[in-house]
Amino acid sequence: MPELRKDPIVGRWVIISTDRAKRPTDFLRAPVVLKGGFCPFCYGNENKTPHEIVAYRPNGTAAQRDSDGWSVRVVPNKFPALQIEGMLNRQAEGMFDKMQGVGAHEVIIETPDHTATLATLPAKRIEEVLWAFRDRVVDLRQDKRLKYILIFKNHGEAAGATLEHPHSQLIALPIIPKHAVEEIDGAKQYYIFKERCIFCDIVRQELENPVRVVDENDDFVTMAPFAPRFPFETWILPKRHESSFENSSSHVFENLAKAIKLLAMKADAVLDHPAYNLVIHTSPLQDAGNEFYHWHIEFMPKLAKTAGFEWGTGFYMNPTPPEESARFLREADLSLLTPEETGAK
Amino acid sequence: MPELRKDPIVGRWVIISTDRAKRPTDFLRAPVVLKGGFCPFCYGNENKTPHEIVAYRPNGTAAQRDSDGWSVRVVPNKFPALQIEGMLNRQAEGMFDKMQGVGAHEVIIETPDHTATLATLPAKRIEEVLWAFRDRVVDLRQDKRLKYILIFKNHGEAAGATLEHPHSQLIALPIIPKHAVEEIDGAKQYYIFKERCIFCDIVRQELENPVRVVDENDDFVTMAPFAPRFPFETWILPKRHESSFENSSSHVFENLAKAIKLLAMKADAVLDHPAYNLVIHTSPLQDAGNEFYHWHIEFMPKLAKTAGFEWGTGFYMNPTPPEESARFLREADLSLLTPEETGAK
Repeated sequence: MPELRKDPIVGRWVIISTDRAKRPTDFLRAPVVLKGGFCPFCYGNENKTPHEIVAYRPNGTAAQRDSDGWSVRVVPNKFPALQIEGMLNRQAEGMFDKMQGVGAHEVIIETPDHTATLATLPAKRIEEVLWAFRDRVVDLRQDKRLKYILIFKNHGEAAGATLEHPHSQLIALPIIPKHAVEEIDGAKQYYIFKERCIFCDIVRQELENPVRVVDENDDFVTMAPFAPRFPFETWILPKRHESSFENSSSHVFENLAKAIKLLAMKADAVLDHPAYNLVIHTSPLQDAGNEFYHWHIEFMPKLAKTAGFEWGTGFYMNPTPPEESARFLREADLSLLTPEETGAK
Repeated sequence: MPELRKDPIVGRWVIISTDRAKRPTDFLRAPVVLKGGFCPFCYGNENKTPHEIVAYRPNGTAAQRDSDGWSVRVVPNKFPALQIEGMLNRQAEGMFDKMQGVGAHEVIIETPDHTATLATLPAKRIEEVLWAFRDRVVDLRQDKRLKYILIFKNHGEAAGATLEHPHSQLIALPIIPKHAVEEIDGAKQYYIFKERCIFCDIVRQELENPVRVVDENDDFVTMAPFAPRFPFETWILPKRHESSFENSSSHVFENLAKAIKLLAMKADAVLDHPAYNLVIHTSPLQDAGNEFYHWHIEFMPKLAKTAGFEWGTGFYMNPTPPEESARFLREADLSLLTPEETGAK
């Protein structure tokens, strides 16, 4: 019999199929493939993007701005969803509320290598990308108009990527998005009741009986949540309480990079190079240090034609129990990946 | 400059592009096409579905069960997400909550005509489908384990439909889904503050200055919401307060059927036969008659490759302002549709 499970943080019930649980090979696989063509994010095309905000270059100087030689480069989105200049101008339209779309929309180009992925990039290079995320948050949080920063990666066209060169996006908002409010409020309610962080409690419980644990290292646990919306949805959580990504102790980024690379390799091995979304969930800028919320990463492979009835209904059915998805990822045989697929070539 | 708009019911902020607003022809169009092949919902294949729950036949008798001659036929889903037999068996798993997946999952086959759509079906036949929805809710609500009934239609493969024969689905749940709780709670808060239904207020304000109104008839208004998540998202709301779909005065179903057919024809004309989801939002079964919630239909065409960054982030950017989408639908030239496309053949 199928099971209804409740996400303990936001209170969302999800149907989990247990009878005919879908295995990785039951999904219509659509491996992410590169189509090539002109790329504004490759070396030599630096003038095809807006002027860079920051870039990492070995022994770089300001004179090298918008030239090649960088390892990570951050530029404004050429077609920004929000604009950095202007007043918020909050106003009513009858009973409705609106404001100007003030904010930042940036692109973090993760590597000059057009063909790299989080699975093939060396962990050290992923760590550099994480530092770039942090640097941008630390800079943007000085702007008191901004309340929340969303950092996410869409990998593959099926997951919403419009350019194939490896990149992430950052959106700094003058409001707190609803899904973040829900998580934060849910965690706050639990804290009021228990005087403990709900994510800390989850990490502790899951490590005691690790049926949903994929991997762990000294600083992070990679695990399927109890009530995942999507098949193979996987979270990476810091083991020690930390409310915001940007306030993490600097030494943890090394282990976070390793955890991300390992998960990306395992997803490639088990799900045949899926498209995916990776989103950093963190605290609002003005409440970055708190006892109740615990930043983390949510990784969602985009497995084609899974069920369909969540479209529009807002109600999720997940055909793969998280205990199964975690087991497949935990037991993934990485020796089946070629040196090209792991970046070891 | 883009605009941030807040949905007044659930408090969700959405980015609305205003500068380079996308027009209907700017979307990658993927008209729904029929592929044919064996269909378990066509006449003569009644034994390929589970036994029918109810069917409308002119002068029908019980002896005709599972034979042809029906105009609307309701059957259990062959691969149900939930099962009707069993105890809820609510229980803990450590700090988590779960229960058995008890509920109903039914399919409403809307017509014997494999090629029909809501645009081509005569309004009278759509009205019959609405009566079938109502009959099923009235029957299922006797089961006190059930708390909420979701009725929705996925049209086209891109919208999640796995069978192309025109059909809707009904899922009766022992919990209230999160998106319904959010809408109901938001409406309740407004009611506590204003002592008026928020949807009634919206209908009144929108009809006074009808920039987002697509159409209206005596009983319904078809309009784009102020802060739509998706381009061309359109709602059909009863003009007079009614908290639940199934408690509507019987005479309104005629005008609801007309409003649905008109919207489906206009979507076909403006967006070239898009895939879409149509969802009935209504009150929980045990609170079906109330002053604060107002049932309605949400219609969301699935326009391919719109933006992408809402995937996973839970934050929406809509490239088409609702004033624009409403204008395109309002001014749709239905004379461009062939008699086949309107069912007038």
